Amino acid sequence: MWKSNKDTAWRPASGTRQRIRDAFLYCTGDMTEFRKLMNEKPFAMQLVEWSFRGMAQVIMVDNPLSGVLVLAALLVESPWQAVQGILGLLASTFTAIIIGLDSTEVTRGLHGCNGMLVTLLMGVFSSSGDWYWWLLVPGCLAAATCTFLHSGLRPLLDPWDLPVSVFPFNTVILLYLSCTGSTNPYFPHHPAERPVAPEHSNNTHLQGLQLLQGVVRGVGQIYACEELWPSLLILLAVLIGSPLLCIHALLGSGAGLLAGLSVAVRCTWLYAGLSGFNGALGCMAVGGLFFKFNWKTHLLSITSAFLSSYGDIALSNLLGTVGLPACSWAATLTVSLMLLLTAHNLSSYRIPLGRVMFPETHQEAQAHRAGADMHSTDV
Amino acid sequence: MWKSNKDTAWRPASGTRQRIRDAFLYCTGDMTEFRKLMNEKPFAMQLVEWSFRGMAQVIMVDNPLSGVLVLAALLVESPWQAVQGILGLLASTFTAIIIGLDSTEVTRGLHGCNGMLVTLLMGVFSSSGDWYWWLLVPGCLAAATCTFLHSGLRPLLDPWDLPVSVFPFNTVILLYLSCTGSTNPYFPHHPAERPVAPEHSNNTHLQGLQLLQGVVRGVGQIYACEELWPSLLILLAVLIGSPLLCIHALLGSGAGLLAGLSVAVRCTWLYAGLSGFNGALGCMAVGGLFFKFNWKTHLLSITSAFLSSYGDIALSNLLGTVGLPACSWAATLTVSLMLLLTAHNLSSYRIPLGRVMFPETHQEAQAHRAGADMHSTDV
Amino acid sequence: MWKSNKDTAWRPASGTRQRIRDAFLYCTGDMTEFRKLMNEKPFAMQLVEWSFRGMAQVIMVDNPLSGVLVLAALLVESPWQAVQGILGLLASTFTAIIIGLDSTEVTRGLHGCNGMLVTLLMGVFSSSGDWYWWLLVPGCLAAATCTFLHSGLRPLLDPWDLPVSVFPFNTVILLYLSCTGSTNPYFPHHPAERPVAPEHSNNTHLQGLQLLQGVVRGVGQIYACEELWPSLLILLAVLIGSPLLCIHALLGSGAGLLAGLSVAVRCTWLYAGLSGFNGALGCMAVGGLFFKFNWKTHLLSITSAFLSSYGDIALSNLLGTVGLPACSWAATLTVSLMLLLTAHNLSSYRIPLGRVMFPETHQEAQAHRAGADMHSTDV
Repeated sequence: MWKSNKDTAWRPASGTRQRIRDAFLYCTGDMTEFRKLMNEKPFAMQLVEWSFRGMAQVIMVDNPLSGVLVLAALLVESPWQAVQGILGLLASTFTAIIIGLDSTEVTRGLHGCNGMLVTLLMGVFSSSGDWYWWLLVPGCLAAATCTFLHSGLRPLLDPWDLPVSVFPFNTVILLYLSCTGSTNPYFPHHPAERPVAPEHSNNTHLQGLQLLQGVVRGVGQIYACEELWPSLLILLAVLIGSPLLCIHALLGSGAGLLAGLSVAVRCTWLYAGLSGFNGALGCMAVGGLFFKFNWKTHLLSITSAFLSSYGDIALSNLLGTVGLPACSWAATLTVSLMLLLTAHNLSSYRIPLGRVMFPETHQEAQAHRAGADMHSTDV
Repeated sequence: MWKSNKDTAWRPASGTRQRIRDAFLYCTGDMTEFRKLMNEKPFAMQLVEWSFRGMAQVIMVDNPLSGVLVLAALLVESPWQAVQGILGLLASTFTAIIIGLDSTEVTRGLHGCNGMLVTLLMGVFSSSGDWYWWLLVPGCLAAATCTFLHSGLRPLLDPWDLPVSVFPFNTVILLYLSCTGSTNPYFPHHPAERPVAPEHSNNTHLQGLQLLQGVVRGVGQIYACEELWPSLLILLAVLIGSPLLCIHALLGSGAGLLAGLSVAVRCTWLYAGLSGFNGALGCMAVGGLFFKFNWKTHLLSITSAFLSSYGDIALSNLLGTVGLPACSWAATLTVSLMLLLTAHNLSSYRIPLGRVMFPETHQEAQAHRAGADMHSTDV
Repeated sequence: MWKSNKDTAWRPASGTRQRIRDAFLYCTGDMTEFRKLMNEKPFAMQLVEWSFRGMAQVIMVDNPLSGVLVLAALLVESPWQAVQGILGLLASTFTAIIIGLDSTEVTRGLHGCNGMLVTLLMGVFSSSGDWYWWLLVPGCLAAATCTFLHSGLRPLLDPWDLPVSVFPFNTVILLYLSCTGSTNPYFPHHPAERPVAPEHSNNTHLQGLQLLQGVVRGVGQIYACEELWPSLLILLAVLIGSPLLCIHALLGSGAGLLAGLSVAVRCTWLYAGLSGFNGALGCMAVGGLFFKFNWKTHLLSITSAFLSSYGDIALSNLLGTVGLPACSWAATLTVSLMLLLTAHNLSSYRIPLGRVMFPETHQEAQAHRAGADMHSTDV
């Protein structure tokens, strides 16, 4: 078990081995000790840490090293996209600082992630080509708007203890794309394609290897990365944060692929991983973050993955009629639904929002508590 | 007055007459005594009772005999639809039991009704023809999703004491239809038609008799039944539960017809009763279920019927542009609006959700209370 | 400063001058003394006062004289529109009285303003020409529906202390337009145009004077007035209520124009002021009504104006695909968002809904309090 070896002797290791293990444990999970270390550093360095945490918050990981890997993935995919993402992240973080939002959230990078996603997607959909610098102006405005929406949605969702998550990103990107339209002279963009296959298309010869790659690419598509290598880097970023999340990401992406196959979406959609990223997000949030992990919540996380994927296909078909993408609406709504469930077989495993941590930390705490209980009954 | 004769001597009846009357009273209303009787029976028999209650819950009746009549109506309309409905009902009820929802609601069939409606509508819109068995797979999944939505919407609506009613069905059917689309190779469906008449159509020669039949068919359309005989059976099912509900169903359907005429919808739409079922639902809920009956709430129920009908035409026109039906969104939203009203001339007659019963029971209770008051003032 | 001269001697004025000044102060602001005077008058005269207040409530002014100016503006624009507006206003006010809504709101004209806007817009979009009397029938029904929606939305928005504002108008006008459609034989209407410029259009030769007029027309477009003179009258109506609101109206309309230019909307859209009225509303509500005025909230009001304008372009493009207008959805949603903000640098200046008054009254109260504080510290 991840991290649970911390206190117990694992094996009488040599000095070097021990140091490697310590460094490994230091870099994984949410890196609490690194955060403590950074608290005394100057503002600029802290901002860098917050930004890297913000980059990783999209995949529900609160680890600056994962953020570094995500940035590497974006650079491999397209340096222009990486520049845009960084700018959006900074714009929304600064807005949060200026209007005076809760500083704990700022330090955890929760405001940055929405801004980064918006600017990334604006770059992906833009049809002006790379290094069209004017795009940074609406990018900054959109990222700042995300922070306003985040602050305004909080009191709306609070009575039900729901996270704001990526609602602001999803709203702002749709507004931006409808505002400019595909024929805009300054900021034109490609209209989004619908997943539904055109009539009389021949979908029968699916290639197994490409489908398997589609599962991995589904995880990359969370950051709009379509290439294989960036996707693998992003998968590694999840793994560093929490192996349980990583498994659920792949499971969810696979479930999304199956959902796509079952309603015969276009094969390019499947190969690019577009059918998988909502499933991955829905599966990760339920299986690794907001619920205590056991076989019941594991089944729930797979249910959530399928619901997110089918919902995404439905919304993509609907919004595609006006040329808009469905982004991660389906996953965000499905996860909110799962968190609202009152059925007592499931809701009893829900972790209150204020106590959400890494799944491994929870497992450890649970094991610790169980051990203490056993001890007390022994006496 | 229905049932109010229970305690008073009606007329010195012969034994047979008395027995018929007793049997009649036993079978009408919500059949509380039958429910008590079933509590000691094995699970399978209880499940049958719950299912029949679930079938009748769509028309806001909590009576297993009404469920039997509804099933008969579905069988007359199309045996394949009946099979689908039963399967959806069972799928959503079992999901509710498995995830551990409130057992009182399960026994009253509240979860079954959403599942049944979804599978019924999936069958009606499917263009694969009858007895296409593969359709049962998405049917079961959709029905199970309804139960999840029901459980998740409950805490959202609770602060305002609103019922979940058929929100899950309306959401899931739209998602299913947008997910598959009309050209899907596995699960194709007919696109929904818009109520607006095509230009240059000749709508002037409406036939009176067909319009009158449209009023009755409007009640049948609650279960997507277009034929006359099934509609009459469904009307009878309402009558058994509560005559007041039955009157309001016909009134509401008639109001829907008038609304349709006033904005000149297609005559086939009027004849098929498609303009009436939202009005019927809106009228029944306000006039017979959620408000104490008097002339003010009677007027409100007719207002609700007109609002539901106009809302349905508007939403059908809107959703029809992407080939989707408006189902019962308009009625569900209108009834929710009526329940939210704070105007003190109306809100004082609202019955809190936990005490909603058959209108006749309320009347009886009111009469009883009035009698007690009179008695106490006499003394 | 407006009104703050009331108690202090301004300069030893002659009797006539004094009387003019008194009359001027009597007519501006919310005319509390006039209201007290009217309380003893017969019902019909009170109703006239309420109606004029209702007319001015759309521009967030609670002053009957502003209502008179608005009516004058409507008469100059089109007498038929004025008749429709008055009828809608009366229909919704009477509905509010009949169903028993809070009488304070009725006397302030809050219910009338939604009804008036709906009938105004129905007239503007109708393609049956002026003096088509049948249009008054759906007009009255739509206005009455607004009151129902107002009453139903209140408990939904209350937990967050949000105003209902013009949500009912925005909902009902969309439902009416989708219900009838552009080819309806009884109530046909022009489909709304999209702000996006058609491809290959030549937008380069914008005329400065017309753009400046567009800023003023943007204020008039709040009442769907496109002509210059009515717009100036409406601007005067705002000025009488509060000069601060008037400045923000022009600022917001200007911001809307800039927003429109930045995404290259059609020049006819800019000239007609259609890009300005959402900005004006968003700017007025934040800068002059719901927040204490200082430089931070002034910046927030400009942010709100830009957000409202961009939001309006986005929604107009979206709803325009089905021929519907975006009305003031963007401004209403943006203002609600601003009122929800939890960021402590902004939320501390928010005025609770129950204590919202004219900005000048607030300023006066603040100055008074500051003076009292200074006095107490002196002692």
